[in-house]
Amino acid sequence: MKSYRKELWFNTAERISFVNITQDVQTAVKESGIKEGLCLVNAMHITASVFINDNESGLHQDYKEWLEELAPHEPISHYRHNLTGEDNGDAHLKRQIMGREVVIAITDGKLDFGPWEQIFYGEFDGRRRKRVLIKIIGE
Amino acid sequence: MKSYRKELWFNTAERISFVNITQDVQTAVKESGIKEGLCLVNAMHITASVFINDNESGLHQDYKEWLEELAPHEPISHYRHNLTGEDNGDAHLKRQIMGREVVIAITDGKLDFGPWEQIFYGEFDGRRRKRVLIKIIGE
Amino acid sequence: MKSYRKELWFNTAERISFVNITQDVQTAVKESGIKEGLCLVNAMHITASVFINDNESGLHQDYKEWLEELAPHEPISHYRHNLTGEDNGDAHLKRQIMGREVVIAITDGKLDFGPWEQIFYGEFDGRRRKRVLIKIIGE
Repeated sequence: MKSYRKELWFNTAERISFVNITQDVQTAVKESGIKEGLCLVNAMHITASVFINDNESGLHQDYKEWLEELAPHEPISHYRHNLTGEDNGDAHLKRQIMGREVVIAITDGKLDFGPWEQIFYGEFDGRRRKRVLIKIIGE
Repeated sequence: MKSYRKELWFNTAERISFVNITQDVQTAVKESGIKEGLCLVNAMHITASVFINDNESGLHQDYKEWLEELAPHEPISHYRHNLTGEDNGDAHLKRQIMGREVVIAITDGKLDFGPWEQIFYGEFDGRRRKRVLIKIIGE
Repeated sequence: MKSYRKELWFNTAERISFVNITQDVQTAVKESGIKEGLCLVNAMHITASVFINDNESGLHQDYKEWLEELAPHEPISHYRHNLTGEDNGDAHLKRQIMGREVVIAITDGKLDFGPWEQIFYGEFDGRRRKRVLIKIIGE
């Protein structure tokens, strides 16, 4: 069994932002030399997500508005977590909807994807350096 | 390390539908010959889910009503994604609540499940051919 | 390839409760002897979650209030599932938001975590004996 580990770093300009990382993950799969296995991609921070969906800007705007309805950023005082001095209580909730991680099959040395699957880093408390972990195991 | 790959195909009669695929996944585990490992089951389409919960029709109706409250299908014009000509903006949101994938332990050649765990394909934009991927690795 | 399996048991005093299981999972990783691999941690019951987030009591209170807004426990009669004689329809919905499972990279024999990641058992229908499964594969 082989394993491979790689980190991706982000520092988004906006508080909420989605970044397409599909090519970065595919590059990591190639670097790993693994032909058959599983690839874990997870946010290493608890106010961010990794998710798989469509690379369509209208949909991304829909996600942002929907998440804002489900867990509004303001009023800041709505969240007890913000009594710690943070203002990111909402980001911890949004991240649960969109998920921490994805696990992707690797087949013939490639991400084994349906026609529209793309991997996104979902940032809900940006403007600071944060990481994604890629861990691949297989042969 | 062994690996095994199989696709399941669906074409549901309804726009929203839940299909019990537990036996199909157990069959794939048997076909794989893998006794100890991990089994990934994921929707290959971005308006569908794979999730684990109870095989109880009342609960499934509860899920459908709840998801419709959280992300209503209509008005179609509510979703920017639908400006692309699609009418499935809501389906992309519903899928995030229910999840893209499950990862299941395989022990002694079987799905290592609690007493009520069953695997479902969750369709939110049906009436077309769509796929689920099963990928198993282990020994 | 090695594999390792362990169960954790819970019987929470409250109906809804979050239990930090990070050390239990780290102990299982050490027991496994696996240095590089993947660790699956999943609820074996369908009204409970395993999730990764911050070990901060204010946030946990925020989660409980938010989940109660999204899927209220009462009125019990709101859920068709409760026609079976159960009163836990809401718990099946809450668990979908918080998730069934997490998959964690193992690197150098440890959980490969960002600075604030902690693993929690999320109970939404407690006061009974329930289990979490840990399954680790790797080398």
